[in-house]
Amino acid sequence: MTFSIPQKLAAEALGTALLLAIVVGSGVMGAAMSPENNAIALLGNTLATGAGLVVLITILGPVSGAHFNPAVTLAFLIRSEIGLTLAAAYMAVQIAGGVAGVGLAHAMFDLDLLQVSLKARAGAGQALGEATATFGLVLTILGTLRFRPDAVPMAVGLFITAGYWFTSSTSFANPAVTIARTLTDTFAGVRPADAPAFLLAQFSAAALAVGVAAWLFAHHKKA
Amino acid sequence: MTFSIPQKLAAEALGTALLLAIVVGSGVMGAAMSPENNAIALLGNTLATGAGLVVLITILGPVSGAHFNPAVTLAFLIRSEIGLTLAAAYMAVQIAGGVAGVGLAHAMFDLDLLQVSLKARAGAGQALGEATATFGLVLTILGTLRFRPDAVPMAVGLFITAGYWFTSSTSFANPAVTIARTLTDTFAGVRPADAPAFLLAQFSAAALAVGVAAWLFAHHKKA
Amino acid sequence: MTFSIPQKLAAEALGTALLLAIVVGSGVMGAAMSPENNAIALLGNTLATGAGLVVLITILGPVSGAHFNPAVTLAFLIRSEIGLTLAAAYMAVQIAGGVAGVGLAHAMFDLDLLQVSLKARAGAGQALGEATATFGLVLTILGTLRFRPDAVPMAVGLFITAGYWFTSSTSFANPAVTIARTLTDTFAGVRPADAPAFLLAQFSAAALAVGVAAWLFAHHKKA
Amino acid sequence: MTFSIPQKLAAEALGTALLLAIVVGSGVMGAAMSPENNAIALLGNTLATGAGLVVLITILGPVSGAHFNPAVTLAFLIRSEIGLTLAAAYMAVQIAGGVAGVGLAHAMFDLDLLQVSLKARAGAGQALGEATATFGLVLTILGTLRFRPDAVPMAVGLFITAGYWFTSSTSFANPAVTIARTLTDTFAGVRPADAPAFLLAQFSAAALAVGVAAWLFAHHKKA
Repeated sequence: MTFSIPQKLAAEALGTALLLAIVVGSGVMGAAMSPENNAIALLGNTLATGAGLVVLITILGPVSGAHFNPAVTLAFLIRSEIGLTLAAAYMAVQIAGGVAGVGLAHAMFDLDLLQVSLKARAGAGQALGEATATFGLVLTILGTLRFRPDAVPMAVGLFITAGYWFTSSTSFANPAVTIARTLTDTFAGVRPADAPAFLLAQFSAAALAVGVAAWLFAHHKKA
Repeated sequence: MTFSIPQKLAAEALGTALLLAIVVGSGVMGAAMSPENNAIALLGNTLATGAGLVVLITILGPVSGAHFNPAVTLAFLIRSEIGLTLAAAYMAVQIAGGVAGVGLAHAMFDLDLLQVSLKARAGAGQALGEATATFGLVLTILGTLRFRPDAVPMAVGLFITAGYWFTSSTSFANPAVTIARTLTDTFAGVRPADAPAFLLAQFSAAALAVGVAAWLFAHHKKA
Repeated sequence: MTFSIPQKLAAEALGTALLLAIVVGSGVMGAAMSPENNAIALLGNTLATGAGLVVLITILGPVSGAHFNPAVTLAFLIRSEIGLTLAAAYMAVQIAGGVAGVGLAHAMFDLDLLQVSLKARAGAGQALGEATATFGLVLTILGTLRFRPDAVPMAVGLFITAGYWFTSSTSFANPAVTIARTLTDTFAGVRPADAPAFLLAQFSAAALAVGVAAWLFAHHKKA
Repeated sequence: MTFSIPQKLAAEALGTALLLAIVVGSGVMGAAMSPENNAIALLGNTLATGAGLVVLITILGPVSGAHFNPAVTLAFLIRSEIGLTLAAAYMAVQIAGGVAGVGLAHAMFDLDLLQVSLKARAGAGQALGEATATFGLVLTILGTLRFRPDAVPMAVGLFITAGYWFTSSTSFANPAVTIARTLTDTFAGVRPADAPAFLLAQFSAAALAVGVAAWLFAHHKKA
């Protein structure tokens, strides 16, 4: 199937927007309904994000690849599976879509559209959390594409489901998501000052995962 | 496979009735077991609704298409995939089935069969929530039918799982569900006065999603 | 594939035993960890039962059909898909296996092996709950077998996931499970005095579902 | 597909490391967010572990078989599906990987890298829990491989999801996991003194499951 560039860019923008609406909106809902136990809020946040990712990748993957994530786009760029110009355009619309999605979440919950997060997510542990999350996400995508391409939507949804709980940073694993989440002072937010360390960890880990996958998933040539 | 009109109408009525029994019954159960933390009630409500939808669409989809939803029927009407007479009959039995399903939930929990909800769900934010939910639901259905028809039951169940948490209105996304839920003064209820804005948002968003899908999922013709 | 009668009976006994160990064990775990909020206990109970059913039906379905349930065996008997003698043997080993499974759960949690439940689950609403649950379960099985046989394990697991929350009785939906659960005075128990009404509702609803399915899922012959 | 020995060992080490990071990390997250209700912590721990297992087995199964578990490797050794030397190497890297994964979890959450658990998990009931869990896990793997090999990742994830709730020991079901979890004094830890009984139960039950599966899943030869 062939889709046009405008269709691809629209799919990336729409998918990232809905992803952020899901991440931020479900965080607002959970924190409002369970103000005294954030673990319950995180359960709702997790269910919504995991389920939403499966759906968005299922319906938009055939159009654009359903990256919704500059670190994933970088991985495919390193692998020469996407050109530089299109990759740059993908990253731009992912960020724009993500910001719009945060605004949609705010509008649905009658909150101020424009916010800046005050939530600290700092330190070496959280940076390692982001590196682990993004390494795992990119390895998941490349391994599933390699062995069972039809399972990519489910695998990504399940990896992020796990990541929300097992990484100290709750697995942003996505620079567009990170930037967009600096613009919400709700459950899912992150201070702008903490974003650069997240982005560095995410892009670095994506590149590392490409290297590991290239070796780990390659057919063995018998001597 | 070919099924008769009575089979199709029975499938729509039975499916919508069971859907409402699931939505309302699990809300009653959750609120009764967790009166002080509604987030836990919503988790049970979400699990039951998402799981139930997958099952109902799996077994009734081959018979009637498993719309269970006048906004979905409208979408297929706009796409000329269902005739006007059958679409009108679908909508009528969906509403009747939904009302019966609410009664079944009340009977199972020894509640008054006939109730009117007092629960306010009003304002622009909630209307936007319903528009977002229905737009997403119809896009999910059309995208999955386009690229992976076997995954429709799972995709719809997962989208509504996400929707219960990320939209401010908890994703009714369905005029028959909305009307039926005005008739229960329990966790899942909605005041009759708030229903018209929900219905307007739902039908409008379904029509919009048909338009977006027609462009987004169309094959690109090379110049 | 052909399996011997001893293999089939072993599969029914083992599967029902593990099902009861899962139902009762996860109830004990949940109630012990969340004594003040039974909704959280029910969430764990639900997850364990739904997940366990998918697995048990996947691995034992090809051997015996994975009924684990006299009401399901009755449904196949009515449909002449199992003989009377084998059906009777199935029911006997299902009950014996279920009782053994309750004992296994008790042993794992260092509880008295032999117990009698004191938990009341009575009234017309709960009987209607069991009828609804069993009707839905049998319709799920027959519909999925009709249209997508590979999905039976997932569909049954998901239907019971929904049933734990939307029916007032939490969906026993199974006479062997009902009998076995009279023998545990824990979260999942039911008083022996309440069992007969459950069994009556379950067997009746299974028969009704066979009738409905025979009409609803039959190909339409054009005039 | 053929993969080299280094690729296989790397897959076992990486998979077991990520599995332990998931198990321990999600336990830390859950206990920190819900200190007064451990059932909620266990829900998050369960979701993360089940989801993570599906992903890890999907992407690493084609490389190494995705055992991540000396008891599973023993089962395949008994069945002569892996050689003794490779099996021993698998077990060694599984343990090493598991220990590294615990360290990764500690590092992500800014905890001391080296810890020894003080958490008692003792007694006959818990040993029976481990035997039940490992018997069920190996039967799940062998049954799914027999009848529906593509479903192994999902079946294992779902069995462990159930096991976390229905067994008194929360289903370690894995000697490498057991050893690694002696090295964390967090939610998922286990005292070193309690490990030997777990290991004995796990290896014994794995061997028993191989025997049961050999009979239960064998084609019946007609007389």
